[in-house]
Amino acid sequence: MRIALAQINTTVGDLKGNSEKIIANIERAKRLGVDCVVFPEMTLCGYPPEDLVLKPHFIADNIKVLRSLKRHSRGINAVVGFVDRDSSGRIFNAAAVLSDGKIAGIYHKQHLPNYGVFDDRRYFVRGENNPVFQFGKLRIGLSICEDIWPDDGTHIEQAKRGADILLNMSGSPYDIGKLEIRQKLLARRAKEAQAFVFYVNLVGGQDEIVFDGGSCAYSPKGNVLASARLFEEDLLVLDVDSSVVSKKKRDKNVAALFSGKEGKKPGVSAQVRPASEKIERIYQALVLGTRDYVLKNGFKKVVVGLSGGIDSSLVACIAADAIGRENVVGVSMPSQYTSAGTYADARRVAENLKIGFHEIPLNPTFDAYRVALKDVFKGLPEGVAEENLQARIRGNYLMALSNKQGWLVLTTGNKSEMAVGYCTLYGDMSGGFAVIKDIYKTRVYELSRYRNAIEGGQVIPQSVLDRAPSAELKANQTDQDSLPPYDVLDEILMDYIERHRSFKQILKHIKEPQTVQRVLRLVDQSEYKRRQAPPGVKITPRAFGKDWRLPITNKYREY
Amino acid sequence: MRIALAQINTTVGDLKGNSEKIIANIERAKRLGVDCVVFPEMTLCGYPPEDLVLKPHFIADNIKVLRSLKRHSRGINAVVGFVDRDSSGRIFNAAAVLSDGKIAGIYHKQHLPNYGVFDDRRYFVRGENNPVFQFGKLRIGLSICEDIWPDDGTHIEQAKRGADILLNMSGSPYDIGKLEIRQKLLARRAKEAQAFVFYVNLVGGQDEIVFDGGSCAYSPKGNVLASARLFEEDLLVLDVDSSVVSKKKRDKNVAALFSGKEGKKPGVSAQVRPASEKIERIYQALVLGTRDYVLKNGFKKVVVGLSGGIDSSLVACIAADAIGRENVVGVSMPSQYTSAGTYADARRVAENLKIGFHEIPLNPTFDAYRVALKDVFKGLPEGVAEENLQARIRGNYLMALSNKQGWLVLTTGNKSEMAVGYCTLYGDMSGGFAVIKDIYKTRVYELSRYRNAIEGGQVIPQSVLDRAPSAELKANQTDQDSLPPYDVLDEILMDYIERHRSFKQILKHIKEPQTVQRVLRLVDQSEYKRRQAPPGVKITPRAFGKDWRLPITNKYREY
Repeated sequence: MRIALAQINTTVGDLKGNSEKIIANIERAKRLGVDCVVFPEMTLCGYPPEDLVLKPHFIADNIKVLRSLKRHSRGINAVVGFVDRDSSGRIFNAAAVLSDGKIAGIYHKQHLPNYGVFDDRRYFVRGENNPVFQFGKLRIGLSICEDIWPDDGTHIEQAKRGADILLNMSGSPYDIGKLEIRQKLLARRAKEAQAFVFYVNLVGGQDEIVFDGGSCAYSPKGNVLASARLFEEDLLVLDVDSSVVSKKKRDKNVAALFSGKEGKKPGVSAQVRPASEKIERIYQALVLGTRDYVLKNGFKKVVVGLSGGIDSSLVACIAADAIGRENVVGVSMPSQYTSAGTYADARRVAENLKIGFHEIPLNPTFDAYRVALKDVFKGLPEGVAEENLQARIRGNYLMALSNKQGWLVLTTGNKSEMAVGYCTLYGDMSGGFAVIKDIYKTRVYELSRYRNAIEGGQVIPQSVLDRAPSAELKANQTDQDSLPPYDVLDEILMDYIERHRSFKQILKHIKEPQTVQRVLRLVDQSEYKRRQAPPGVKITPRAFGKDWRLPITNKYREY
Repeated sequence: MRIALAQINTTVGDLKGNSEKIIANIERAKRLGVDCVVFPEMTLCGYPPEDLVLKPHFIADNIKVLRSLKRHSRGINAVVGFVDRDSSGRIFNAAAVLSDGKIAGIYHKQHLPNYGVFDDRRYFVRGENNPVFQFGKLRIGLSICEDIWPDDGTHIEQAKRGADILLNMSGSPYDIGKLEIRQKLLARRAKEAQAFVFYVNLVGGQDEIVFDGGSCAYSPKGNVLASARLFEEDLLVLDVDSSVVSKKKRDKNVAALFSGKEGKKPGVSAQVRPASEKIERIYQALVLGTRDYVLKNGFKKVVVGLSGGIDSSLVACIAADAIGRENVVGVSMPSQYTSAGTYADARRVAENLKIGFHEIPLNPTFDAYRVALKDVFKGLPEGVAEENLQARIRGNYLMALSNKQGWLVLTTGNKSEMAVGYCTLYGDMSGGFAVIKDIYKTRVYELSRYRNAIEGGQVIPQSVLDRAPSAELKANQTDQDSLPPYDVLDEILMDYIERHRSFKQILKHIKEPQTVQRVLRLVDQSEYKRRQAPPGVKITPRAFGKDWRLPITNKYREY
């Protein structure tokens, strides 16, 4: 018995494109002698489709396309995710087992996540049946994503009913520690159920979410037997000796025979891909998330404001790696406050990366604003208004290029800045995609060093890594004039944002009450800015996106 | 038995302020001889608190404040909404019955809405007990908001157990047809349960949501006995003859004795406030939503870009009515494309409203941009980039004033524009609050005529009402150059956005396939703009806010 896990990159709403991809993978599986090919969660409509499933015609169309897939299942079985609707209009997150030209069975997801980035209960009704599919001599317990996560998940009942294999179709978003958590969970579930676990995960970026793939197979002893690529499409083919499996004797009954490009012959030994380092995975997630946002939204090129600072340098690298250096344009927009060092570094980053480069001067436009605003500003001291104006002129330059050339603007703000509001609405926040909005400043440095290391040279100049961060919006300004050092700041932020720690709890290990109070106040006061920020790649367990739903009007202050 | 429904305006997170308001109303109820005073949903923490309830210390603080309220219940009963947590850490949307200095009972909401703007299941566990509280000779079935909406709601069980009164504590957001739906529902529930329905609703604005109040009492025959003010705080006092009520004989057993400001003596006849006209209620919702957003976020003044067009004229009126004309500043920012008529009208609106007024010329700054961008734009024709630049310069002027003076910028875009993307990111979309973002253009005219009528004169000049709408970003431009007439456009939009109608369904009554196709495509393509828009008052059943969760990356096209 040969089973293939088709780890594909779907696009939300692209019923035609997704079904073509499904068909191509079915055909490929047939050529490889596969008996059953399994796809990730909501294969047909893409995941998460969000409020698209509130449109009755969208669901009707997705069912129509599912039916058109039936004929491709002649001589093979294919398990495909879709949105199901019953006769009373209830909607389900579902999987169809296509077999020999027919729909042989349908499964409805039972555990509907409604936390973090997930809103499953906004749309779906909980499935009621927990079928174990007989597949030759094998009993397969089918489940969808969350179904296998809670301790009272579908695996309990499926194990009782003698499932040999727990087959889970997932759309499990990447975050920084998720892979290890997932691996441990799947190993535990395999042992608990005394069954093999075959896990197929989605891969690709969808708005702020990145699915990391990493489909895999576990033995009943909890050993990993095979794993697919991370952050890339893959087809993992597993041979199952059903006569032995059904006795549940040994780990070797399932061997990953093949994982990789078509054309290679199936091998004989299980292939387990070593997971890359955390920092590498973060970088890959940023690259994939950026690539898919840009390309799936129909853009070919991007433009990045290059300040000569570390944030924009890193974003330029990610952009070049995502869509090719020939499709990235850097723009330097120096002002009277731009130092010679940053001025030179902006150009140097563009040269090192071999991306396009433009320079547009800021001062004349800034002067025009000052003249225009002279009367209404009369008698008032210079301050934030003038600083923000400079950021906004730069934002306008980039948007003008975007409008004129059809390039997508990538913003360059990091999570530390987004958290405390150290960023300008309609200024440096202007753009379609905020690549590193979930990367703390300390991690920006880590990633920059990582990027330099894999290039085997200094793409990001050492001077950029060494210079004290500054917005350069007034004379002799550095970030640390108004913020604590970034290592302290980031520790406070992680405590407050990701660990839901209170002011008092944070004080237990950061013994600077005034600093902590200031940071917490800045975070709370900046909600209105975050609400108008572009989306960006989710990296942490709690990003400033769908998993961060704080009210703007909010008088809660515990400090 | 005297029961008071305290329709108060709480603020999310303001545990101290909300509890002070609760205490003041308890004291006032005591002076009025009330036996039991009831508050709206989540009284203590404000509603909806969203992800604040994911902070354990927030819940702990809210429980601490609840306990501090106990002593105020000596000699009276008070029913207060709060967030409860049980020993295993489960969170409930709850109500506490405070009685004679103690917590006499706690109710946990059972029906948790997870649609539209609601995410209750993200936070709360469903309550398991459906207590009927004995209150003197009366049996009171307590419920929270959604509990009474579904046909299998808590009222079924409560009726079986002989409830004399169904007491519902709500946080039910306003939308355009909700009041009538709610009134019908409550009347039906009263008849079904053969019980009185006492309904206390929240009032006030919270980000995009406005709670409209309108607390009321229904007889077991489904007749309205009393109703409180809409869009204002109120205290509705109801006298119940418990000996007769318990026999459920007549409607007159509950009489609204008092509804209004303290000091008046309770009367004897039931007071039912006639609901105002729909258009008036829309206007009131806009005023209340704007006022509460501005004031609850700590602003005193607002600034509005006055173009001389109808949208900004209406927004200026709403702002003046919300926070006083002395706190509103209009800014005219004419360009070479501004007609003499709109130029004059911008000033005239400011004069009619007696609000502050500034004028800042656009052309010199626009020219500076053109010079700066000359090289990068070389050889490319003029177009949208130049149009957007003008809108963005205006946005920057307003934000500069905001930064300098601490004024909140109100944006002036309407729903028709937001839907088709006929608005400029970081331009006219720049600001903290988008007052009329949920008002279709045709309704903008209705509201403007309404506002003129209540003033008894032409605050908004007739020329503004008569002139063909134009963005005035290039020569001889009108909206209808690139959009269908607004009455057609709005009909398509309502079909598509609010009724989830498909392309084919819309064609059944708007027989212009190309127009419909164009509009639908514009709506689908503009998601990225809406995602970065400021919040604004929700008026329709489906606003571009928390109840609109479409992916940006979305290839579904049915046309």
